[in-house]
Amino acid sequence: MARVAVWRGGAEVTLENVALPEPGPGETLVEIDLATVCGSDHHTVAGRRPGACPSVLGHEGVGRVVGTGRRVVWGVTVSCGACDRCRRGLTAKCRSVRKLGHEAYEAAWPLSGTYATHVLLPAGTAVVPVPDALADEVAAPAGCATATVMAALERAGSLRERRVLVVGAGMLGLTAVAAAADAGAAEIVVSDVDPARLELARAFGATWTVTAGQALPPVDVALDFSGAAAAVEAALGALDIGGSLVLVGSVSPGRAIAVDPEAVVRGWRSVSGVHNYEPRHLEQAVAFLAASERPWAELVEEPVGLDRLGDVLTTELGRPRASVRPRED
Amino acid sequence: MARVAVWRGGAEVTLENVALPEPGPGETLVEIDLATVCGSDHHTVAGRRPGACPSVLGHEGVGRVVGTGRRVVWGVTVSCGACDRCRRGLTAKCRSVRKLGHEAYEAAWPLSGTYATHVLLPAGTAVVPVPDALADEVAAPAGCATATVMAALERAGSLRERRVLVVGAGMLGLTAVAAAADAGAAEIVVSDVDPARLELARAFGATWTVTAGQALPPVDVALDFSGAAAAVEAALGALDIGGSLVLVGSVSPGRAIAVDPEAVVRGWRSVSGVHNYEPRHLEQAVAFLAASERPWAELVEEPVGLDRLGDVLTTELGRPRASVRPRED
Repeated sequence: MARVAVWRGGAEVTLENVALPEPGPGETLVEIDLATVCGSDHHTVAGRRPGACPSVLGHEGVGRVVGTGRRVVWGVTVSCGACDRCRRGLTAKCRSVRKLGHEAYEAAWPLSGTYATHVLLPAGTAVVPVPDALADEVAAPAGCATATVMAALERAGSLRERRVLVVGAGMLGLTAVAAAADAGAAEIVVSDVDPARLELARAFGATWTVTAGQALPPVDVALDFSGAAAAVEAALGALDIGGSLVLVGSVSPGRAIAVDPEAVVRGWRSVSGVHNYEPRHLEQAVAFLAASERPWAELVEEPVGLDRLGDVLTTELGRPRASVRPRED
Repeated sequence: MARVAVWRGGAEVTLENVALPEPGPGETLVEIDLATVCGSDHHTVAGRRPGACPSVLGHEGVGRVVGTGRRVVWGVTVSCGACDRCRRGLTAKCRSVRKLGHEAYEAAWPLSGTYATHVLLPAGTAVVPVPDALADEVAAPAGCATATVMAALERAGSLRERRVLVVGAGMLGLTAVAAAADAGAAEIVVSDVDPARLELARAFGATWTVTAGQALPPVDVALDFSGAAAAVEAALGALDIGGSLVLVGSVSPGRAIAVDPEAVVRGWRSVSGVHNYEPRHLEQAVAFLAASERPWAELVEEPVGLDRLGDVLTTELGRPRASVRPRED
């Protein structure tokens, strides 16, 4: 039997038993060691973004394939591989995409989220092996936070000798800081509202920190993880000639940002967006984490059991990230 | 002796004689066969963009190198090749950039524009040979209109099997239409205020035409040459998932455009700008025009002499493009 935490609205979470399925062709059944709690689950439970309900939430995690024991992480999106978007390499936007931890709790796919002892990964889900040396709390965010940052960095182009601005020092922002440092960025400026997070940013490679709202130096690449319209506008204003702004945090409805088209044209500037990622980014995420020596474990809280999930989800967006260890043994 | 047309404000243009210089190291002296009149010169003379005055205007043209007789076109920008921007491949934004047809009329470089019998191309100017089979009126716009479109297409990425929107059916827009057709675009939608230009767009490869302000179909790539804020916003709204908007026309001060950051993020969309171009784009422009069989000559009016330049410049932005044949023989 698998045990799943079913979110039923607000703080209500029920624990239920689901018979362990026999994986079909292309499917992978994973026993979960640790699930981390992505900010989007906090947003869903708080009603700031729409989400199916009841639902087994949770999409970040690390575990072992039932039968082989292979240790793996997995992608958020389940793609058909055949539609026009999949064929163009936008599998995250597959015409019939399903997402782990985002679907209604139904008999067709009850093991669809990571707040559970097991998850059934359908065919069309990226599955990537994880070295044993990588701690659970470091590996678990690979499938959402880390891989999304890899997609954003690809969109930004080479960071070598570039001046980089990272807006928002949450899990994704600090991951971007560490990756920018590895990529040989000339300067890494980090902006956040919280002085403690700016302090932590130094340990991930920040060379300069700025309290949100203060003046920014000119940069070549800016990455926004805050999703705050004013912060996005400030980041755009900080772009030097040839500069590129990649938006990641703007995943909730909000006001439009004002863009001066003449500044975009004369300055060869660009603004682009990233949402979820492609399988190659998950592979890059695992390789990046495996080679990194930053204090990743500080970004994740001590795990709780599935029975505490309701409290965790209704707590305000956690920094550090909450985590769940579903096995009761 | 060279003969130059010096713009002195408003419609006042004086013809003056300049001693032919001996080209120094890296310099190229060109006798001009035909100069075409870029829209930016109309804007400068009308006061819609700042410009040095007095000045020898004109930057598009075709001619023969004095001494060798080699037929060439040339770039707009003169770059140092040594500053940080040049080293990064942004020579068009060189820290000490000079631009043909944009500099003050001074003894240091009197042959600085193409409304003249001769132009002296400084070291750091791209110079590209032109096949004799390419007519003057087809080759002359290569150095600004055509090369800028090549830069915009590079920014847009592959157009193969893509749905492409071209906003503005002037010289640049129609060039983009023809290039998109050559690149194997699935659909080429053209928007303009003028039904006659939309008709002409069909001859350049448009598969669908839309009067400006009407509803647009979803597209993968949009290229704006209009510079009109409302048209830019409409083009952004037409982008499908993964779509890319390249701005080219927004070269005058104007209102900000409103951008929904959530649509950028969730839709993997991008907005970027292009202004001038790199030397490779001029080479691409000549190769593109040499292989194209579109009715290019219809885009350029019969040439006038240098003595008529004042009238031409103060005429409202011309479609077709005006041209000047500076030799009086």
